[in-house]
Amino acid sequence: MAKDSYLVGLVGAGIGPSLSPALHQREADRQGLRLLYRLLDIDVLGVAPEAVGDLVRAARDLGFDGLNITHPCKQLVLGHLDALDPRAEALGAVNTVVFGADGRAVGHNTDVTGFAASFARGLPDAPLERVVQLGAGGAGAAVAHAVLTLGAGRVTVVDALPGRAAGLAESLVRHFGPGRAQAAAADQLPVLLAEADGAGGLVHATPTGMAAHPGLPLPAELLRAGSWVAEVVYRPLETELVRVARERGCAVLPGGGMAVFQAADAFRLFTGVEPDSGRMLGDLAELAGAERSGSLAG
Amino acid sequence: MAKDSYLVGLVGAGIGPSLSPALHQREADRQGLRLLYRLLDIDVLGVAPEAVGDLVRAARDLGFDGLNITHPCKQLVLGHLDALDPRAEALGAVNTVVFGADGRAVGHNTDVTGFAASFARGLPDAPLERVVQLGAGGAGAAVAHAVLTLGAGRVTVVDALPGRAAGLAESLVRHFGPGRAQAAAADQLPVLLAEADGAGGLVHATPTGMAAHPGLPLPAELLRAGSWVAEVVYRPLETELVRVARERGCAVLPGGGMAVFQAADAFRLFTGVEPDSGRMLGDLAELAGAERSGSLAG
Repeated sequence: MAKDSYLVGLVGAGIGPSLSPALHQREADRQGLRLLYRLLDIDVLGVAPEAVGDLVRAARDLGFDGLNITHPCKQLVLGHLDALDPRAEALGAVNTVVFGADGRAVGHNTDVTGFAASFARGLPDAPLERVVQLGAGGAGAAVAHAVLTLGAGRVTVVDALPGRAAGLAESLVRHFGPGRAQAAAADQLPVLLAEADGAGGLVHATPTGMAAHPGLPLPAELLRAGSWVAEVVYRPLETELVRVARERGCAVLPGGGMAVFQAADAFRLFTGVEPDSGRMLGDLAELAGAERSGSLAG
Repeated sequence: MAKDSYLVGLVGAGIGPSLSPALHQREADRQGLRLLYRLLDIDVLGVAPEAVGDLVRAARDLGFDGLNITHPCKQLVLGHLDALDPRAEALGAVNTVVFGADGRAVGHNTDVTGFAASFARGLPDAPLERVVQLGAGGAGAAVAHAVLTLGAGRVTVVDALPGRAAGLAESLVRHFGPGRAQAAAADQLPVLLAEADGAGGLVHATPTGMAAHPGLPLPAELLRAGSWVAEVVYRPLETELVRVARERGCAVLPGGGMAVFQAADAFRLFTGVEPDSGRMLGDLAELAGAERSGSLAG
């Protein structure tokens, strides 16, 4: 049963430039729903990341229907919820909190479901026997869970911090079974990507390619024609990796899909209404385009 | 400069049936503004009226643009604000809090300005030399301030609690000057209303006439043809007092006008946009009519 209105928000640090308010509010407008999306920036509020529990309780008391949660609060919020969706529990991270009519706060992770939906839509026939993943941080953990949920045979995780790669691989094996994940050093990439040729592809989940971290996360010559590359970075919408991989004959999945589908999945959880993810992809292209040309300054 | 969206709410006890969300949201919709109005009911939250300060701070932190405040928090909120409008300060009660861009919370009282606007619109030529007022509670204090601000010569306050009437009269004299107010006992009403004939009228500010307190607040025969009667009760829109006074030839001001103009004044404070109070009066009539016929159950 649809409510009269929806009040949601995003808790995180340095979230001023977030496109989530626009993505959610535009889709709500088209659906004829009254929805307001507020940014609750802990930097602006001058509180520590550990205050996320207080913010969750205050939001529930003040009539919020739900919250998105981002860096650095996705793990910290776990201890302040009444229940967890199994995917969020397996990952140990929550990016979406829904308040029930009974006041219970339930944690979900639409980074996992969003990446899975984007992948299934953009690379529907991609082989998943051998997947190489760059990046074992928070985004990396979410997309590795998504890829294994989609049925990947094995994910090999490479990170600049070898201990972090090993830790993620161990956690993945614990949840998905022996042999489903392993860690490797960066100098193994040529071998790993040769093995993946025809049997898998590359998932990129490091910050490289964002405006503040330009460049390629690996040598261009490792990108093999006929392979696939899935990107997590979505600002800019076309990263250097996406551009070079396409030029070299790879099937590519830009990061915007994950950004939109995580928002679409959160929208469905907040409102109970099915969003039109195709329209939301159009919004992201328009918003990110406007941003690139400077017309979304501030 | 118009904002992208407005988040406001009402803090009070037992406010579930409030028409404020509908009044504000309908007017915002017509103005093309994204506005969401939430009810923050201390009974539902299970907190004491003294928690109003915590709620004001939490609302500011969570991105609210302002709050309306009602019973039993209109006085309690005073200690939690950064500044007061002079009318709110004189009255010692706040029904509207506006959060500035700097995070400052400023208190206003649109019960005072709303009653004054309704009176000026509905009884523009009413004589104000001698005004008799029934009721010295919170609403009574606000409308007495409004009537004296409109230029009333003297307001005589009658209340079932003689000490409360005396206290309000003293406070009014302190703010508006010697002779501008006095208290009287209920048995003086025949004399007082005879004195007011042709020189003033009657303001009614007790709960009598509401669904839970049906009836007339004074004997019908005291209502003199050619006099005026201003009602504060607005649920139902036409109280027994309004109906009987009209039948007896009085000019009448139903309570709906104050309800709408206090909302309109708050809307202007929250948004900076001029509301169309005529349209809002139509909304109230429709909402209260639907309520009377049972279609707004709950």
